[in-house]
Amino acid sequence: MTYKTIKYEVAENILTITLNRPDKLNAFTGEMMFELIDAFDKADADDNVGAVIVTGEGRAFCAGADLSAGAKTFDYEKREDRPDKAGDPRRADGSIDYSHEAVRDGGGRVSLRIFECLKPVIAAVNGPAVGVGVTMQLPMDIRLASEDAKFGFVFNRRGINPEACSSWFLPRLVGISQALEWTYTGRVFPAQEALEGGLVKKLYKADELLPAARALAREIIDNTAPVSNALTRQMMWRMLGADHPMEAHKVDSRAIYSRGASADAKEGVMSFLEKRPAEYPCTVSKDMPDFFPWWDERKYS
Amino acid sequence: MTYKTIKYEVAENILTITLNRPDKLNAFTGEMMFELIDAFDKADADDNVGAVIVTGEGRAFCAGADLSAGAKTFDYEKREDRPDKAGDPRRADGSIDYSHEAVRDGGGRVSLRIFECLKPVIAAVNGPAVGVGVTMQLPMDIRLASEDAKFGFVFNRRGINPEACSSWFLPRLVGISQALEWTYTGRVFPAQEALEGGLVKKLYKADELLPAARALAREIIDNTAPVSNALTRQMMWRMLGADHPMEAHKVDSRAIYSRGASADAKEGVMSFLEKRPAEYPCTVSKDMPDFFPWWDERKYS
Amino acid sequence: MTYKTIKYEVAENILTITLNRPDKLNAFTGEMMFELIDAFDKADADDNVGAVIVTGEGRAFCAGADLSAGAKTFDYEKREDRPDKAGDPRRADGSIDYSHEAVRDGGGRVSLRIFECLKPVIAAVNGPAVGVGVTMQLPMDIRLASEDAKFGFVFNRRGINPEACSSWFLPRLVGISQALEWTYTGRVFPAQEALEGGLVKKLYKADELLPAARALAREIIDNTAPVSNALTRQMMWRMLGADHPMEAHKVDSRAIYSRGASADAKEGVMSFLEKRPAEYPCTVSKDMPDFFPWWDERKYS
Repeated sequence: MTYKTIKYEVAENILTITLNRPDKLNAFTGEMMFELIDAFDKADADDNVGAVIVTGEGRAFCAGADLSAGAKTFDYEKREDRPDKAGDPRRADGSIDYSHEAVRDGGGRVSLRIFECLKPVIAAVNGPAVGVGVTMQLPMDIRLASEDAKFGFVFNRRGINPEACSSWFLPRLVGISQALEWTYTGRVFPAQEALEGGLVKKLYKADELLPAARALAREIIDNTAPVSNALTRQMMWRMLGADHPMEAHKVDSRAIYSRGASADAKEGVMSFLEKRPAEYPCTVSKDMPDFFPWWDERKYS
Repeated sequence: MTYKTIKYEVAENILTITLNRPDKLNAFTGEMMFELIDAFDKADADDNVGAVIVTGEGRAFCAGADLSAGAKTFDYEKREDRPDKAGDPRRADGSIDYSHEAVRDGGGRVSLRIFECLKPVIAAVNGPAVGVGVTMQLPMDIRLASEDAKFGFVFNRRGINPEACSSWFLPRLVGISQALEWTYTGRVFPAQEALEGGLVKKLYKADELLPAARALAREIIDNTAPVSNALTRQMMWRMLGADHPMEAHKVDSRAIYSRGASADAKEGVMSFLEKRPAEYPCTVSKDMPDFFPWWDERKYS
Repeated sequence: MTYKTIKYEVAENILTITLNRPDKLNAFTGEMMFELIDAFDKADADDNVGAVIVTGEGRAFCAGADLSAGAKTFDYEKREDRPDKAGDPRRADGSIDYSHEAVRDGGGRVSLRIFECLKPVIAAVNGPAVGVGVTMQLPMDIRLASEDAKFGFVFNRRGINPEACSSWFLPRLVGISQALEWTYTGRVFPAQEALEGGLVKKLYKADELLPAARALAREIIDNTAPVSNALTRQMMWRMLGADHPMEAHKVDSRAIYSRGASADAKEGVMSFLEKRPAEYPCTVSKDMPDFFPWWDERKYS
């Protein structure tokens, strides 16, 4: 797949995905949706990728949905240009078959793919991030931002509603009060408000943002085992939905037992005792434990 | 229904519900419970109501349960004055039928009704809020408070326990450590501690509190679509209990598909492109999408 | 049971459990696991215990797993010294029976026992707390720390993964972004970072830490009813996993009904009206309500 709307660059084990429609402020399209999903598939399959950074080309991170279709922007049945068009969800009697692929929200497909990712994901929010431009960031692990960034959950100002699974992610990240205030008002707010509200971890001067994101990726890659990070990512995100700590005990017992006997554990302990950097031999592509995944993936229906 | 313990006033699309037993510091009674539930029913049914503010008359917000019955205050079987008395939950063998209506906590009935509300709800905490006076605020969306407010989860000092579903709401709002510290100690604490603990969003001088609450309600009403806000409120609160983001994807896909084809979406996009205020035509009473509600309401049993 | 690795001391209704292998920086062992579980059993059964403080002897809180076994530290099948060895989980065909007792993570057994505790639990983190030394703190209610404390979720630096149910607890305590940053990097960080990240409530000079923990325990014991605190602890922690506030309503309705008719409630109201300290007659060993526990304990499998 050759990407038209994003850039995919791996250097020093860090994958940088750059939203790349700078003349449109990196506005989100159906094409970008498919390319992002493909990029995360590639990232998971490539053992050279130890962490992922997502950023935007030019002065914006992502301006949200492309509104150039005007009043029919969100009216999928009237949009012949949607590349994800998968037939007509209307039944003979005129009712909608909501299990139909054509009804699926594109932002949500991206969010769910990021949720399933096996590598640490850092957002480097270089400029305005509005609509799906901010909701796509929520399943990323850590958000760093430029002092020039702006954010807006503007859906209710467009007469639609928050998407991309943001009703699941946003209250868990910033608390339900802040989540509702931002979505009810639809206001566009500065980076400082995002920092105070807990949406982003830290602000940087524009030219220090990507170096900071890379330094954090570096700290992860240079110190910790890739298979451990893959397990940790899925354990933490999925246990956020679990109803009892016993569910974590079942998984982390298996993980400690399996990983404890691995070559990574031997290297991890010995490198510590010998006060030297570790070289972990296990890889995500070959060495995930036999109990992984421990879940049946949830279906859309 | 003519209210005796609350005031119900709509002005400029803002409903203000005022707890109105000022000589009793607005202490909570069974009558107040039924009136509050009725008021939220009316609010949901009235398209003139775009947001709800809840506050207290006089110097208190709500002093909690009325203790004037003394030692039998919380002993429901000994309280002939309870208007919600619904028969005797004791079985012939002396055991309690806990599914019986008479055993239901009154604060919890109010909390659950607020949880189901379709309009944004802002608490304007003008003074002391103790016991059910604070737990009833937890399912409200945003809490603003006077610098003179005080708060107390005093239940364990009365030999009873936190109610009004607060064991579900409070740890989600302020974290479990803060929730337990406040309930274990039962201490009455100043507004500043409530702010630092994350219970309230912001403090105001006494005479600036209601204007601030109204300004926030105004910002919502003037900018965003009522049907979008109704959907958003239920999506966010209910997904807080969902175990997987796919559950959000199912709902927000349906919402984006349905609302995206609505007159609100057309108006939302066109008003933005034309840089003018929006006039959303859809109403909560008539235009909720056909998949709403997407849940079966949970029964008491 | 005579303890070899911990101290168990009750004074003025406060139980202090002290991790007591100071020459090994209180490193965690299988023996310590069994002793901690036994200590919490004793604490729950003893009505003289109104609150629990957990701290460490000497300069550390707990240095994590004892690495003196070197490369085979986490390889349970190669560790003949593990006191919890419960047979071999390998089936005839070489596969692992992950439901087998021998596969259970020891830190998780401790965490689950603390989760089930009926008394308020305060961690007084006097020094370094690394690996299971910090994950065992997560099911405690409130963490206070010395300015000299350090923390580290170092698992992924040892080639293993976070355990002790920390994937359930940590994101709920500090948010998933902070949880992932600490586990992905495995960094050891100072007390100030733990404070800013929400892991600990407050920092103290070294010699003021235990007095502060005791003052908080005192505030609880002197003011609130032990049965109320036992109920509150289980209500709050378990509702953190519940999918709907109705589940809390069912439990707190039963609790208010049952406790409202108790001698504790009479004393709680009357002592308040008479402005005198309360003397609650009910005890955790004899007077938990008949609906308690309201859950079936989750099984390991």
